[in-house]
Amino acid sequence: MKTNKFYFLVLGLVLSSIAFTAIDKAAGDSNNGIRAAIEAVTSEWAKQYKAGNVAGVAALYTEDAKLLPPNSDFVAGREAITGVWKSMLDSGVKEVKLETVEVTGMGDSGVEVGTYETMDAEGKVTDKGKFMVFWKKVGSAWKLHRDIWNTSMPAAPGGENK
Amino acid sequence: MKTNKFYFLVLGLVLSSIAFTAIDKAAGDSNNGIRAAIEAVTSEWAKQYKAGNVAGVAALYTEDAKLLPPNSDFVAGREAITGVWKSMLDSGVKEVKLETVEVTGMGDSGVEVGTYETMDAEGKVTDKGKFMVFWKKVGSAWKLHRDIWNTSMPAAPGGENK
Repeated sequence: MKTNKFYFLVLGLVLSSIAFTAIDKAAGDSNNGIRAAIEAVTSEWAKQYKAGNVAGVAALYTEDAKLLPPNSDFVAGREAITGVWKSMLDSGVKEVKLETVEVTGMGDSGVEVGTYETMDAEGKVTDKGKFMVFWKKVGSAWKLHRDIWNTSMPAAPGGENK
Repeated sequence: MKTNKFYFLVLGLVLSSIAFTAIDKAAGDSNNGIRAAIEAVTSEWAKQYKAGNVAGVAALYTEDAKLLPPNSDFVAGREAITGVWKSMLDSGVKEVKLETVEVTGMGDSGVEVGTYETMDAEGKVTDKGKFMVFWKKVGSAWKLHRDIWNTSMPAAPGGENK
């Protein structure tokens, strides 16, 4: 019996060790996968916007997403989010270039930091800035959950913005 | 032998189940603890700033932290971060009120969304806005790792900001 107990204890420890190594590895793979998945949806965002499909842009957000746009209060939910991007499109911003700088993946969540450029119909850059997005995995899809950005251009003289 | 194997298998499954329940519970406790810890450091940020201790504010950030201030490129590292808050203090912003709206804790990371108000020496509100901070636990301390904010006030007429 003594030998059997020892055998099962060792077997148990070895199996636990293999299990935990597998869990660690899965977390590592998942982090790499998260960056790729988030970059793909970030590209899709820009593609949908350029196509003028602001509802398609809004569909990339979670149902209970919030935008934190400059010069605005919080904007909650897909319908209101559609309105923000429609306003921007109507104001003459015809393209938004997005570049992912870093992604930190944490299981079913991720934080992305990046830069943006907005362009008018002639392709002239009208604004340059940076953003931070808090991502959530909903089912198998990565969705923007919280989205905040600001300009990197100098403040307008006498403007309210700091 | 057959009975012994079965006994150890059941024992192993029971112990695994207890272990995983303990891990789940720790994660739940930890999330609540994260919100409280992050709110405490957010309060400390405002306290240090009001005391004019901008180095004390910068010390609340990770060594490799980045600010994403409006009308500026990324600002990296504590020395540069100290400079940003010193400039704001020198510009006449004598107090910053911070309110945490939500915290999502994920192990050693957290995402905080909140609102801010800046005040001049007479206590007059000079700006109102919102922020998102990506927090990291360094040792036993929660530190600001990525920090972005923008105003909720209307854009200056003819300003660059969107």
